[in-house]
Amino acid sequence: MIWCRFQAGETISYGIVEDETVIEVSGIPWEEHARTGKTHNLSDVKLLVPVIPETFYCAGVNYRDHVLKMAALLNREPSFPPRADIGYRANNALIAQGETIVIPKDAHDEVQYEGELVAVFGKKCRNVSPSEALDYVFGWTIGNDISERVWQRNDRTLWRAKNADTFKPMGPWIVTGLAPDQLRTTVRVNGRVTEDFDTGNMIFDAPTFISEVSKYNTIEAGDIMWLGTDGIPENIKGGDVVEVEISNIGILRNPVVREE
Amino acid sequence: MIWCRFQAGETISYGIVEDETVIEVSGIPWEEHARTGKTHNLSDVKLLVPVIPETFYCAGVNYRDHVLKMAALLNREPSFPPRADIGYRANNALIAQGETIVIPKDAHDEVQYEGELVAVFGKKCRNVSPSEALDYVFGWTIGNDISERVWQRNDRTLWRAKNADTFKPMGPWIVTGLAPDQLRTTVRVNGRVTEDFDTGNMIFDAPTFISEVSKYNTIEAGDIMWLGTDGIPENIKGGDVVEVEISNIGILRNPVVREE
Repeated sequence: MIWCRFQAGETISYGIVEDETVIEVSGIPWEEHARTGKTHNLSDVKLLVPVIPETFYCAGVNYRDHVLKMAALLNREPSFPPRADIGYRANNALIAQGETIVIPKDAHDEVQYEGELVAVFGKKCRNVSPSEALDYVFGWTIGNDISERVWQRNDRTLWRAKNADTFKPMGPWIVTGLAPDQLRTTVRVNGRVTEDFDTGNMIFDAPTFISEVSKYNTIEAGDIMWLGTDGIPENIKGGDVVEVEISNIGILRNPVVREE
Repeated sequence: MIWCRFQAGETISYGIVEDETVIEVSGIPWEEHARTGKTHNLSDVKLLVPVIPETFYCAGVNYRDHVLKMAALLNREPSFPPRADIGYRANNALIAQGETIVIPKDAHDEVQYEGELVAVFGKKCRNVSPSEALDYVFGWTIGNDISERVWQRNDRTLWRAKNADTFKPMGPWIVTGLAPDQLRTTVRVNGRVTEDFDTGNMIFDAPTFISEVSKYNTIEAGDIMWLGTDGIPENIKGGDVVEVEISNIGILRNPVVREE
């Protein structure tokens, strides 16, 4: 099932996407909800960020190939994370399907995409085993972890390197019933494929991350967890269009501008 | 004016605190709101975390003395932040006045308080100068940035070192109309004063942090910014009671237990 959050006129609502139709729903998909009887053409609604989480988890480094290729590129020994220590991103940076990634005017040219699978939680979760972990996931969406690498290397924190406004495109919607280790992620810049990898190649898979986090942190319904990227991302610039496709979810597409 | 968020019976609401009375208000203090005509005895209500932010900013290192003393404690060279790079904390860790700080059973003994002044924003804020910055702050509250130092030193991120459940007491309420650089912070463990410092000793003051963050990030109404601590925090243990008092705001008091 495909769940979107959308705006039609003044109404902001969740909806179920079936073919080219959005069936309007009152309430929250992972709480009480009901079909309202209203429908919209998918092409007539504005898709919104599927959920604004209370806590925005992000795995950071989480694919073996990414570590190896980055190490080779930098002529360093590869360093694999020894544990599933989760990181965070910030809600101010979230934008929806089709919205514009704005590169700040003083950003360096090393601004890069990172295509990521995203878990959206549907139930409160504390101290769960890996084998139970996926029971707490409502569904899956796509994230693009835009990163300014000079700030990432030099600042004390990731605040503007990864959390500047518009640096976290997420969407287009949430899809339920998927096996998170059996999907294919493809990134395209201006239609050219730049990355193509299996979500099964994560260093720590979704159940491991969820189980580890839940040992100390209560994950709430509506929280999200981004699960890292593979490959060696390329720079993007004003005028580009970036697409992150994950099989059985869809395509997250965002144009890029540079602030003047 | 003192604004609290509270529960009385089944009702969760904001209220205005006057002496020992809470005047119930409908709506949000920094949006449309109105007095409902209902009042409660302050001692009859349960105070809640004053706000659950969309983005939880935290300055981290922001007092000169703290840098020097923590460097000694962590056996590192002191490193003063060259810029006001903001950090983050996570909402799962928030607890209210009087709620219990729970030290996880596998935590080391180096679990410490950090008493902090907290800005609560009342208006959306982007690209503001330091001289305008305080116009966007609705009021001020108190935070206690509980930290497990072994995890802080060894993990890749601060996730459990600073964001384990219950590690972010905040409250007891929000006070408007204060000058953030003219307050006195006092920390007590079991009634004994362990820290005592002026908020005027910050490396980067509140207007500077707000202005810097707002260059790249839109700060939303209801967001919070914790502004760092001074001194050399001591360990706390099960059975302790920690109080963070900030002059003209109040006392944030939380008991501590160790999970068995």
